[in-house]
Amino acid sequence: MTEITVEKNLLEDNARTAEDNRKLLAAARVYMLNLMSGPGAGKTTLLQRTLERMQGRMKLAVIAGDIETRRDADRLSGLGAQVLQLNTRGECHLEARQVGRALRELDMKGLDAVIIENVGNLVCPAEFDLGEHDKAMVLSVTEGADKPGKYPLMFRESKAMVLSKVDLLPYVDFNVEAAVADARAVNPAIEVIKVSSRSGENLDGWLDWLEGRVKKARG
Amino acid sequence: MTEITVEKNLLEDNARTAEDNRKLLAAARVYMLNLMSGPGAGKTTLLQRTLERMQGRMKLAVIAGDIETRRDADRLSGLGAQVLQLNTRGECHLEARQVGRALRELDMKGLDAVIIENVGNLVCPAEFDLGEHDKAMVLSVTEGADKPGKYPLMFRESKAMVLSKVDLLPYVDFNVEAAVADARAVNPAIEVIKVSSRSGENLDGWLDWLEGRVKKARG
Repeated sequence: MTEITVEKNLLEDNARTAEDNRKLLAAARVYMLNLMSGPGAGKTTLLQRTLERMQGRMKLAVIAGDIETRRDADRLSGLGAQVLQLNTRGECHLEARQVGRALRELDMKGLDAVIIENVGNLVCPAEFDLGEHDKAMVLSVTEGADKPGKYPLMFRESKAMVLSKVDLLPYVDFNVEAAVADARAVNPAIEVIKVSSRSGENLDGWLDWLEGRVKKARG
Repeated sequence: MTEITVEKNLLEDNARTAEDNRKLLAAARVYMLNLMSGPGAGKTTLLQRTLERMQGRMKLAVIAGDIETRRDADRLSGLGAQVLQLNTRGECHLEARQVGRALRELDMKGLDAVIIENVGNLVCPAEFDLGEHDKAMVLSVTEGADKPGKYPLMFRESKAMVLSKVDLLPYVDFNVEAAVADARAVNPAIEVIKVSSRSGENLDGWLDWLEGRVKKARG
C-alpha cells in the first residue's frame, strides 16, 4: 500500500505544479505543447524543421528533455528560438516542477508558444501533466502499426498523432490505415498528421495544425 | 525522502526475487536472456526469425512483456516454442516477480533457454534485474546513432547491442561507426551484432551469439 500512496502523492503534487505552470502561461498568453514519442521517432528533426520554417511567423521556445546530454538542444540552437535543455538523470519522463523552473528561465516577452520535447519513451511521459495546453505524439512508420493498442495511454492523451518518416513507407511493412484505426480505437478524436521531416512532405500540414492550436488557446 | 526509500525497497525486493529466479533456472539448467529495446525496434520480428531457425537446434521459450494486448505472443505462437504473454497494465517494465510466476508456468523439461521480450522502452527495463544470465538490447538504425549517450543505462547493462533493420541503412541517415563508438563510450565491452530480420542478413551471427551464451551458461 505504501507504494501506491506515494505514487498518488507524487501525481497530486505534479498536478498542483502543472496548474501553476498553466497560470504562468495564461498570464503571459503563451501556448504550450507537450510533444512525446518513443526514442528516435524524429521529434528533434521535426522541431528543427519547425523552428526553421516558423521564423518570422511565430516566436517559439523549446524545452528539450533528455536523460543525459545536451545533444537535442545543440541541434535546435541557432534557429531563432530560445532553447533550454533539461536532463532528468535517469528519470524516464519530465515532471511539472522541472518544466516550471524552465518556464521561469524563458523570456516570455513576445513569445507565442513553448514546445516541450519530452524524454523518448512511449509509456511514462503520458502520465505526467506538465501544464501544457495540448499533448501531441510522434509515431514513426518504422515502429510498426501495432503500437497504439500496445501503448494505449499516450495515444489516448494526445490531441494529435504525427506519423513521421513517411518517406520510408515504400521500404517498411507499415499499414497506415491499420495504425490510424488502432489509434482511433483508443482515442476516436485523435487527429492524424503524416509528415516527413527529411523530404519535407506535409510539413505545412503540421505547421498549420500547430498554428491553429496556438491561436485557439490565445483566443 | 519517502519516495527514495520506497524505490530502494522496491529494487531490493526485486533483487531478492531475481535471485530466486536465478536459482530456479540453475536447478533446471536453463539459460535466460532479457531482451530490451525502445518500442518498434524489432524485438518480436527478430524473435519470430529466431524461433523459426532454432527449431531442431535449441528448445526455446519466450516470455513476452507488454503493457496491453496479446499481440506479441500471437505473433510468436506456432513456431515450436512455449510462449507466455505478460501484461503490465500500465507499468513501463517487467519485474522479477512477474517473470518468476511465468517461469513456474513453463515446462522446463528439455528447455535450453528462455528469452524475455521486455516492454518496449529504452529507459525503465534496464533498472530491473529479472534473474537473467544476460541482458541484450536492440537498436534500430531508424532510431538514430545518438541514442547510446542519451539513454546510457541500457547500453551499459547490455552484453550485446543488436543493430536491427540494417536493410534500411541506404534510406536513413545512420552512421554505424558513430553509433558503435557512442555505445562503447558507455560500455567498452559491448558486442555489436548487425542484423536484418526482413532480409535475413546476419541472422546467423545473432543465432550463433545466442547459442554461444546458452552453452557458456550451461557449462
